[in-house]
Amino acid sequence: MIGDSVLPFNLKDYLASKQTLVERRLGDLLARETHAPANLIEAMRYSLLAPGKRLRPALVFMAEQAAGGTDEQALPAACAVEIIHTYSLIHDDLPAMDDDDLRRGMPTCHKKFGEALAILAGDALLTLAFQVLAEHYPARTTAACCLALAQGSGAAGMVGGQVDDLAWERPDQPRTLDALEHIHQHKTGTLFRACLKLGVHAAQGERPDGADRTLLDRLDTYGRCFGLVFQITDDLIDVEGNADDSGKRVGKDAARGKLTYPGLLGSDESRARAKALTQEAIDAVTPLGVAGEPLVHLMQFVLARDR
Amino acid sequence: MIGDSVLPFNLKDYLASKQTLVERRLGDLLARETHAPANLIEAMRYSLLAPGKRLRPALVFMAEQAAGGTDEQALPAACAVEIIHTYSLIHDDLPAMDDDDLRRGMPTCHKKFGEALAILAGDALLTLAFQVLAEHYPARTTAACCLALAQGSGAAGMVGGQVDDLAWERPDQPRTLDALEHIHQHKTGTLFRACLKLGVHAAQGERPDGADRTLLDRLDTYGRCFGLVFQITDDLIDVEGNADDSGKRVGKDAARGKLTYPGLLGSDESRARAKALTQEAIDAVTPLGVAGEPLVHLMQFVLARDR
Repeated sequence: MIGDSVLPFNLKDYLASKQTLVERRLGDLLARETHAPANLIEAMRYSLLAPGKRLRPALVFMAEQAAGGTDEQALPAACAVEIIHTYSLIHDDLPAMDDDDLRRGMPTCHKKFGEALAILAGDALLTLAFQVLAEHYPARTTAACCLALAQGSGAAGMVGGQVDDLAWERPDQPRTLDALEHIHQHKTGTLFRACLKLGVHAAQGERPDGADRTLLDRLDTYGRCFGLVFQITDDLIDVEGNADDSGKRVGKDAARGKLTYPGLLGSDESRARAKALTQEAIDAVTPLGVAGEPLVHLMQFVLARDR
Repeated sequence: MIGDSVLPFNLKDYLASKQTLVERRLGDLLARETHAPANLIEAMRYSLLAPGKRLRPALVFMAEQAAGGTDEQALPAACAVEIIHTYSLIHDDLPAMDDDDLRRGMPTCHKKFGEALAILAGDALLTLAFQVLAEHYPARTTAACCLALAQGSGAAGMVGGQVDDLAWERPDQPRTLDALEHIHQHKTGTLFRACLKLGVHAAQGERPDGADRTLLDRLDTYGRCFGLVFQITDDLIDVEGNADDSGKRVGKDAARGKLTYPGLLGSDESRARAKALTQEAIDAVTPLGVAGEPLVHLMQFVLARDR
């Protein structure tokens, strides 16, 4: 594991420190919502503060660092992306969608609080993400972050990817690598890419000439590759892992007839594709020097992950 | 009907012209989403362009006019509030929520497209509302509008009101006017109030000293009263109207054991309360002179409505 190495940059410690920052702030953000019904806040908190890797916030912090910002600048944006991710998990788990009873070993939101409250907790979280941006940033940064977050998570982004993903359960869909990657680019990729944009805007949003376009482009290439590698390793864990480790039923995606990388390419070729994409991501951020190092380590970590 | 009178200001024509503007722009906004799945856009369009009174956009235009703005300035904000309203209707109608098969005589979104797509269409609309603001306004206006919209529609606003409303089906809730009005202030009132704020920010958001506080306060009083009168007349239509007119099953709320104004106060006292609130709303905007006239007419129209 990269996080256990003796490199000067320790990814494990880095992720743990950012996770603490984000989880503390997420708790504070919910605690401030004193005009909201207590049971709604409880359902939001249950899912938002459930154990998670907080990968998306980590990408925000890493992009902010690459853009010369501070963690305090990145924190609201890091919370906003985690809030969006959480709402999407709550709605995905619903009986009408993936119909999951457990997530990481805990009852899903609708199993714990009922379907109606789970739907509304998801809606409230989605809304809260934009509220957090607007409450914490100056106007130019708010506007840039709201735009990037909406584009990454809406009809042409994450939600669109979910819709395409649902269609995979129908037998008439094209079973090609292009089609598979189109779905994943949307379902998970666009939000990862939004995380990186938000990190840059959090750091540079008030610059009179706007954020650094070259940096945004480099990070977007990184984000595109990162999302695909994340999905390939997710698929490999689904096929090869065990339920204790991954916290979800192994082989579930494949059993549903969803197209997966190993199902389409085989495990070896899937791994080769993941390695090539990892290299492309690293090449994109290498010119950033030390400021891009955390991104390099995170990419290698995602390639090597087994849970 | 006020709209049929010979007053210089013709509310019926006013509402019709704004409705045309809004529906055309809503269609354009969806047509631009070429990177989204076609079936998702179709579900969003089905609900967004279903027949509606477009009352919330009308409030945005009227507030913009009171603030000295132009219809072109108000239009994106008017679309954003209608998009939020539409997502809330789609999610409310779901089997786990109100379980409605028809809305204004048409199959509800989930009856037409299935539950999964209806949930996702709602999520995509919610997200689109913030995207429309960020895409169409300069930064200060975007930030002010996103904040007002999120606060009005989120956990402490509309969604919170929905959560409280669900609890009414339980027999242990306090059956008092305060409790009833608390729910309606949130469930419908906060979004009406947000509409008025958005109209002012759309017109004045770029002023160096910010939007006119006195105007915002006057319109907020108006919005609070407007929301309650809207709910009282809605309850009266539910008790006294017929399904052909209102497009929903008459007496349905009462049959579910939900607390209603006529159920709590009787029809006569409910009407008296609506009249008093109408007067309070009109008093709040009378100092605006001609610029506030549409708001006065709309308030009287909502008091007198029978559908």
